[in-house]
Amino acid sequence: MMLIPQGMAYALLAGLPPIYGLYASTIPLIIYAIFGTSRQLAVGPVAMVALLVANGVGELAPLGSEEYIALAILLAMMVGLFQLTLGIFRLGFLVNFLSNPVISGFTSAAALIIGLNQLKHLLGIEIPRNNHIHMILSHAYNAFSETNYITLSIGISAIALIVVLKKMKSKIPGPLVTVIISILVVYIFNLDSLGVKIIGKVPGGLPTVGFPTFNVDAMQGLLPTALTIGLIGFMESIAVAKAIQLKHKNYKIDANQELIGLGLANIGGSIFRSFPVNGGYSRTAVNDQSGAKTGMASIISALLIILTLLFLTPLFYFLPKAILASVIMVAVFGLIDWKELIHLWKTDKRDFSMLLITFFTTLTFGIQQGILTGIILSMGLILFKSAYPHIAILGKIPGLNIYRNIKRFPQAKEFDNILIIRFDAQLFFANTHAFQNVIEKEVIKRKGLQKIILNAEAINSLDSSAVHILIDTIEELRKNNIKFVFACVKGPVRDIMEKNRMKDKLGDGYFYNSISEALEKHNIA
Amino acid sequence: MMLIPQGMAYALLAGLPPIYGLYASTIPLIIYAIFGTSRQLAVGPVAMVALLVANGVGELAPLGSEEYIALAILLAMMVGLFQLTLGIFRLGFLVNFLSNPVISGFTSAAALIIGLNQLKHLLGIEIPRNNHIHMILSHAYNAFSETNYITLSIGISAIALIVVLKKMKSKIPGPLVTVIISILVVYIFNLDSLGVKIIGKVPGGLPTVGFPTFNVDAMQGLLPTALTIGLIGFMESIAVAKAIQLKHKNYKIDANQELIGLGLANIGGSIFRSFPVNGGYSRTAVNDQSGAKTGMASIISALLIILTLLFLTPLFYFLPKAILASVIMVAVFGLIDWKELIHLWKTDKRDFSMLLITFFTTLTFGIQQGILTGIILSMGLILFKSAYPHIAILGKIPGLNIYRNIKRFPQAKEFDNILIIRFDAQLFFANTHAFQNVIEKEVIKRKGLQKIILNAEAINSLDSSAVHILIDTIEELRKNNIKFVFACVKGPVRDIMEKNRMKDKLGDGYFYNSISEALEKHNIA
Repeated sequence: MMLIPQGMAYALLAGLPPIYGLYASTIPLIIYAIFGTSRQLAVGPVAMVALLVANGVGELAPLGSEEYIALAILLAMMVGLFQLTLGIFRLGFLVNFLSNPVISGFTSAAALIIGLNQLKHLLGIEIPRNNHIHMILSHAYNAFSETNYITLSIGISAIALIVVLKKMKSKIPGPLVTVIISILVVYIFNLDSLGVKIIGKVPGGLPTVGFPTFNVDAMQGLLPTALTIGLIGFMESIAVAKAIQLKHKNYKIDANQELIGLGLANIGGSIFRSFPVNGGYSRTAVNDQSGAKTGMASIISALLIILTLLFLTPLFYFLPKAILASVIMVAVFGLIDWKELIHLWKTDKRDFSMLLITFFTTLTFGIQQGILTGIILSMGLILFKSAYPHIAILGKIPGLNIYRNIKRFPQAKEFDNILIIRFDAQLFFANTHAFQNVIEKEVIKRKGLQKIILNAEAINSLDSSAVHILIDTIEELRKNNIKFVFACVKGPVRDIMEKNRMKDKLGDGYFYNSISEALEKHNIA
Repeated sequence: MMLIPQGMAYALLAGLPPIYGLYASTIPLIIYAIFGTSRQLAVGPVAMVALLVANGVGELAPLGSEEYIALAILLAMMVGLFQLTLGIFRLGFLVNFLSNPVISGFTSAAALIIGLNQLKHLLGIEIPRNNHIHMILSHAYNAFSETNYITLSIGISAIALIVVLKKMKSKIPGPLVTVIISILVVYIFNLDSLGVKIIGKVPGGLPTVGFPTFNVDAMQGLLPTALTIGLIGFMESIAVAKAIQLKHKNYKIDANQELIGLGLANIGGSIFRSFPVNGGYSRTAVNDQSGAKTGMASIISALLIILTLLFLTPLFYFLPKAILASVIMVAVFGLIDWKELIHLWKTDKRDFSMLLITFFTTLTFGIQQGILTGIILSMGLILFKSAYPHIAILGKIPGLNIYRNIKRFPQAKEFDNILIIRFDAQLFFANTHAFQNVIEKEVIKRKGLQKIILNAEAINSLDSSAVHILIDTIEELRKNNIKFVFACVKGPVRDIMEKNRMKDKLGDGYFYNSISEALEKHNIA
C-alpha cells in the first residue's frame, strides 16, 4: 500500500513519469522474493538510487525524454549485471570496507539533497534540479514570492498527517491516506484550476517486454553511475536485510546471494521497463510490522501493483505532485542521523570527523564525489591501522609473574638491560617498518641493552616480508651484542618459522614458552 | 669511478645522449648529501628509473630529440616536486604498502626488460626499443644473422671481466677497467671502422643552468611517469639506505627526510639539466665497501665528475656502446632474485603467487601496468587481512586454568552451554561483519547455548562501528536468552566502552578479568 505513492514519488525523483515507479514495483519484487535470502526485505524504487539515476542519466539526456527513459532502463540492466557479477565472484565482502560514519555522513547529505529537491513541488514553484544545496536554497529564496499557497498547504498538511500517523505507530499507512484524501480534495474543490500541479494522465496497462537497447557510448557514460548504484544499492539493502534478520534469526542472510538476488531483480526488471531498484528502509519496516514471514508478502505486493496498473491508474489523475513530494520528504528526512553525529562527537572524534567530511563533500561536491571520498577515507583508515599496529613496552608487576604495558600500568617495572616488547598484530609487510622502527628507537635509547624479548602472543601469522625482517633484525642486533628472543609464539607462527628454518638459522635459545622463562635463562627473574 | 660508465650507460638506456648521465651525477649528489639522512647512499642515474624515463618520455617525443631531452629534464622537476611534497606531508609511510614479493617480482621483470633491451648494443644490430620481451626476443632472433661478431666479443669479454672482478671481490672497479681497456683496444685496432658502434663525440663543459620549460600539456602527459618514478625511485632508495644503515647503526634513516632529500636532488638536478635520479643498489654497495663514512664521499664523486666534464670527455670518443650495454646487463641481471622465488615457493605459496603475478604482468603488459598490479595486489591483501581476522573457539585444557584454540589443541574441551571465543584483532568497521558472522554461525550450530564469553585480550581498540555491533549483538542475543560477556578487556578498550556508557546500557555482570572468572559466575568452573 505504501508502494504505490512511494513508487510514483521515487520515479518522479528519478526524473521519470510516475508510472515507471509502478513498473519498478512489480517484476523486481517477484524475482527478489525467489532468489534473495531475506524474508522481509522490500525491494523496489528507493530514494537514494532514484536520485543517483537522475544525477547520472540527467547528464546524458533531457529529463523525462524518451531517450532518458531508455537510458534509465539500460542503467537497471547494467546495475543488475554488475551486482550479479559481484555476487557470483563472491565479492560481497567488499562492502564492509565502507565504515559506518562514512555511510552515515553520505546518507544524511544525500537525504538533505533529495529532500530539498522536493521544495519546488511543495512550494509549487520552478527550481532547476540541482545537487548543491546552496544553489537549491538560493533558487528557492528568489522564487519564493511565486509560491502557490494552496499547494504549500496541501503539502504541509500531508507531511503533518504522515508524521503524526507514523509517531502514533498507527497501522493506517500515512502515505496512502494522504494520497486518497488529496485526490478527493483536489477533485472536489477543483484545485488544479487554482495552480495546484497534479500528476495528470497515468497510462494504464502492463509494461511492454523487451531488452533495453544496448549502446556502447551510452553504456560508457552510464558506467560510473551503474557502479555507484550497484554498490550503494547493495549496501543499503544488506544493511536493512541484516537489521531485520537480527530481529528474527530463523534464517541467514548471505551477502553474495543477496547480490545475486538484487542483480537478477534489476536485470529482470529492466526487461519489464523498470529503473534500478534495491531494498529500502521504510517499506521493509512496514513489511515486517505487518507480519511478513516469507517472500510471499513481496509477491502479493507485486500482484497488487499489477492490478493497480491494469485498473486503477485513472484514479491518480488528480494526485497533487506536492503529495508525492511530502511522501519523499518524510521518508528521507528520517534518514538524517543527528543522533549518531552527536554520539560520535562525544565518543570518537576520528569517526566524527570522517562523518563530517563525507557529509560536506557530498553536499558541496556532489553524490559521487561524496561516496568516493568516503571510500578513500575508509581505505585510508584501514591502511593506516595496518601500518601502525599497537606496540607496547612491558614491565613486570612487582611480586607477580605478570607483565603489562608500562604506559598503562605505572607500577610495572622494566629491567635494566632487558627490553620486553609486545607487538599486537600479525606481522606482515605493511607493518614490518613499524616493528623495525620501534626496535631501532628503543635500542638507541637504552645504553647497555643485552636482550630483547618479543612477547609474540598476539602475532597470529607472519608473511615472507616479516620473516626476512625478523632474521635481519636478529642478526643485526647480534652484531651489536644484543640477543633477540621470542616468548609465547603461537602455533601457526611456529609452523611458519619452522618452514623458514628459523631455528636452524638462529640456533638454540631463541624460543621460550613465557616471558618469565625467557628471563630466567638470562639469570634474571 | 663506477659512476662515469654507469651514468653514461643509464643515460643511453633513458634514451638520452651519454653526457646527460654525467650531468645527472653532479648536482643531485651534492644536494642529497646535504639533505638526505643516509651517509652511504649513492644517488645518481639508476637503471630502473632510466627505463621508466624512456618508457614515459618516449611516448611524447622522438627518442634523443631536443624535445625529448627537454621533457626528460622537466620530468626530473616533476618527480622532485612530487617527492618533496610527499616528504613535507610526511607520507613516506605509503611506501610500506607495497609488499616485498610484489617489489621482487616487479624488479626482476624490469631487470629482464632492461637487460634484454641492451641486446642490440651487445650484438651490434638494430632492435626497436620495446618493453615486451617476446617482441625483443623475436626481433633479436630475426636480426641475429646481422650480428657484428667483433662487437659481440667485446661485449662478452667485458661482461666476463666485470663478473670475475666482482666475484673476486676485487677492489678494482670492473666497469671502469673495461671502459679503459675497450677504449684503448678500439682506438689501437681501429675497430670502429669494422662496424663496432662507438659513443662518438661527447661534448665537454658543464651543463647550462636554467629552469626547464614548463608546458601544461607535456606535464599532463608526464604525470603518470612522474608519479611512478617518484614512488619507485623512493622505494629503491629507502630499501638500499635501510639495508646499509642496518650495517652501521650510528645514524637513523628518516623516510620523510629521505623524500625531501631526493626531491630536492631531483629539483636541483633538473635546473642543471639532469634527468630523474635516485639511490641505487650497486654504487651504494661500492661506496660502503670503499669506506664512505659521511655524505662527503658523494660530494667528492660529484666533484670528480665535474672535472671529467671539464677535461676528460674527449677520452670517451672511442668507447664502444657494447661496453655500456655490458655494464648495464651485469648490473641489472644481479637484481633478478631467483633465490627469493624458490624460497617463497617452499615457504609461502600466497607470497609466491603474488611475486609471479607481478613478474608476468610487468613482462607482458609493461612497467606501469606491473607496478599498478603490484599496488592493487598489496592493497587487496591488506584489506583482506583486515576483513578476515583470526578468530578462535577456545576450550579448557583439562586440569589447568588455560584456554586454547580447539583447532590447534585437540585436548582442549569445550563446555556444553558456553561458547568461549577469542577475536585476534582490533574490532573495527572492516571486520565487524566477520565478528557477527562467526557469532551467528556458532549460535545456529549450538542448541541450548546459554552464554558466550568473548576473550578480548587481543582487542586493542574499538571504533564506533564496533561499539554499535557489540551492543546490537548483545541485545539480540539477550532476546534469545543467550548472555554475552567480556573477559580480559584491555585498558584502552575499557576506556572506549566507558565513553560509550556500555556499562550503563548493559548493566552489571558483563565484564570479567579472566575466562575462569566469567565461567565461575555461571556456576560452572
